[in-house]
Amino acid sequence: MIVTDLVDQAAALDAADPLAHFRDQFIGSDDSKIIAYLDGNSLGRPLRATRDRISSFVEDVWGSRLIRAWDEGWMDDPVRVGDDIGRVVLGAAAGQTVVGDSTSVMLYKWIRAGVASQRGREEIIADVGNFPTDRFVLEGIAAELGMRLTWLEADRASGVTVDQVAEVINSGTALILLSDVAYRSGYLADVPAITALAHDHDALMLWDLCHSAGVIPQRLDEWQVDLAVGCTYKYLNGGPGSPAFGYVRADLHNTLRQPIQGWMGSADPFAMGERYTPSDGIRRFLSGTPSIIGMLAMQDMLALIEQARLEAIRAKSIALTEFAIQVSDELLSPLGVRLASPRESTQRGSHVTLEHPEFGAATALLWELGVIPDFRSPNGLRIGLSPLSTSFREVHRGLTAVRDLLPQAP
Amino acid sequence: MIVTDLVDQAAALDAADPLAHFRDQFIGSDDSKIIAYLDGNSLGRPLRATRDRISSFVEDVWGSRLIRAWDEGWMDDPVRVGDDIGRVVLGAAAGQTVVGDSTSVMLYKWIRAGVASQRGREEIIADVGNFPTDRFVLEGIAAELGMRLTWLEADRASGVTVDQVAEVINSGTALILLSDVAYRSGYLADVPAITALAHDHDALMLWDLCHSAGVIPQRLDEWQVDLAVGCTYKYLNGGPGSPAFGYVRADLHNTLRQPIQGWMGSADPFAMGERYTPSDGIRRFLSGTPSIIGMLAMQDMLALIEQARLEAIRAKSIALTEFAIQVSDELLSPLGVRLASPRESTQRGSHVTLEHPEFGAATALLWELGVIPDFRSPNGLRIGLSPLSTSFREVHRGLTAVRDLLPQAP
Repeated sequence: MIVTDLVDQAAALDAADPLAHFRDQFIGSDDSKIIAYLDGNSLGRPLRATRDRISSFVEDVWGSRLIRAWDEGWMDDPVRVGDDIGRVVLGAAAGQTVVGDSTSVMLYKWIRAGVASQRGREEIIADVGNFPTDRFVLEGIAAELGMRLTWLEADRASGVTVDQVAEVINSGTALILLSDVAYRSGYLADVPAITALAHDHDALMLWDLCHSAGVIPQRLDEWQVDLAVGCTYKYLNGGPGSPAFGYVRADLHNTLRQPIQGWMGSADPFAMGERYTPSDGIRRFLSGTPSIIGMLAMQDMLALIEQARLEAIRAKSIALTEFAIQVSDELLSPLGVRLASPRESTQRGSHVTLEHPEFGAATALLWELGVIPDFRSPNGLRIGLSPLSTSFREVHRGLTAVRDLLPQAP
Repeated sequence: MIVTDLVDQAAALDAADPLAHFRDQFIGSDDSKIIAYLDGNSLGRPLRATRDRISSFVEDVWGSRLIRAWDEGWMDDPVRVGDDIGRVVLGAAAGQTVVGDSTSVMLYKWIRAGVASQRGREEIIADVGNFPTDRFVLEGIAAELGMRLTWLEADRASGVTVDQVAEVINSGTALILLSDVAYRSGYLADVPAITALAHDHDALMLWDLCHSAGVIPQRLDEWQVDLAVGCTYKYLNGGPGSPAFGYVRADLHNTLRQPIQGWMGSADPFAMGERYTPSDGIRRFLSGTPSIIGMLAMQDMLALIEQARLEAIRAKSIALTEFAIQVSDELLSPLGVRLASPRESTQRGSHVTLEHPEFGAATALLWELGVIPDFRSPNGLRIGLSPLSTSFREVHRGLTAVRDLLPQAP
């Protein structure tokens, strides 16, 4: 059964979409192997430009310039690409964003640097619904330093509110770590209000932007966010395990000291000096040699985002998630599927989570068919919609396949 | 002036070299752009196979399998590739080596895990001549934990001896961190003897194998080394900033606890559990999502090393450094160049350092000419010879160019 209205509507939405033409630039967008890719928030698709850039990098840069390339650009890449992320994605002036390490390692460094600067304050506020690595890293640090962790119990289908933070924050709060977009529900927190609340109590605010970077316009400078980290392999299409980015507000550079004093964060790495002297500025938050190859793909996506403009991407993201909810309401709700994401688009990131007891079994079959959402135990199907690579027809095709695999209503 | 004997000798050595044919497999080995690449110990050349593997990865794996590839292999890559490094390079049984993070971050994790397991011991022994990041990371940890650092002052032209360690080690020594091959002199330390000495005093032995991995056969299991880390972008040709490897002896897995508790080291990452439970085995030493693309190139080189056999590579490495010393003695010594590496091949890794006051100025000119050694301030020219990609003729061409740029003797 095809619901004709929805087919027509998807086609009309694609026809009217000013960003639709960008989709052709992604590998796999000819739909020959993949019917619907609905997990852009786990791993973005590669661009064709990326395949070419990487080949040419191996041959012409690594293979031909060899170590000379460190002087010719690689040494600057972590800060140069960081600045691009700052400008295009974060609303951050240059010199405050750096690329390197994994998100987990960056979280560790940022948290440790933050709490060390807040001597005498013994509490960290966190969210039980945050992504596991955030919680795990925090748990390890708190145990080691003997700090108190205050866990917010957010609504599973939404996320942490200003009121919840206001209830617990106090003069002993050193730092608050939250994700702006909840990895399960897609709930979008009120970043400026929570940041302001943190500052009212002289607490540092660390935002994990993994699930929003590249789809939600940020204004980190304007909101005076202290610290942020984020992932580049989701909506920034950096490829599996590409290095994370980290933001430290400029006026904190000289007061924060990160724990992993490596040579790439030292003042003059090739001086091979006797003692560690941190570099000026954001570089001091680097540790070891960052993956240069790992920074290539994200540069293509950043260029595309800048061309498309992040505000237009956000508008399409809202339209895509609205349409996914509509399709789910019409095709899946009758089969017992429940929406586990906010209905209000201003409270929603770029993914939608649907729940049904059969989704665990259905996901494996969907993947075989070339319909690729993510599964979140115990019963969540996460539909992650990357605006530049996802069409409305793709959303409809994907959710139609989901419907066809569920036990049908009598 | 060409010294004909040396030209003939280089040609004869190449003709007799059983590994000579491997050189064709590297990009740039046609010598069209680079006259002599003498810095394989900073950055190995890419293999042609790597260029093809990476292109095909972007198109057929990342672009086509997308997140399904995590289940189809990526999750296992850090341990699978680690096992390959263990088998081919380290003399380590499976399940003790893992790939991820930078060398600096791994050093931090390994040192922190090691000293935490040695409660009551307050001293770490290190070497003033070790690579900066080793010293910097250690300095930060010691300051934070209030541990005492005992610095060995090794001879600049050689490195740390068993006797030097024996002089200072005591019942308060928690850990010893040394490089097996000194990054300046190329001196090769006595790994089994120093490790045994550490164990006589119940200290943990952590070896940095950055400057030897892939050219010096290791027997980590046989020597009962506790901990090791190493770099994959030098003689393992992993590409700029490719992730490091780390070894933890199997019987230490359950007693060591690393400080960066990330989701990739947890028992069941996709369970998204409430609390951190470390994985069994070597996986627990992972933290965040490792760079999958960053692990591709090293796999081609590991296959090549396994085919060529590490013992044969070591034999060629010795022949190459012997020849470099001979050429230097004949062409460069008359111009005031001094050898700053051991003359005895059993005490030498795969690079040779030459010293002359003009080398700083000469290096920039050499690089322009396509002759690429490394410069180590204040006056060291480091000639790093990667056996599978370097020919004897290349060594001769490179050092002849060095001679031509130095002020000539009257």
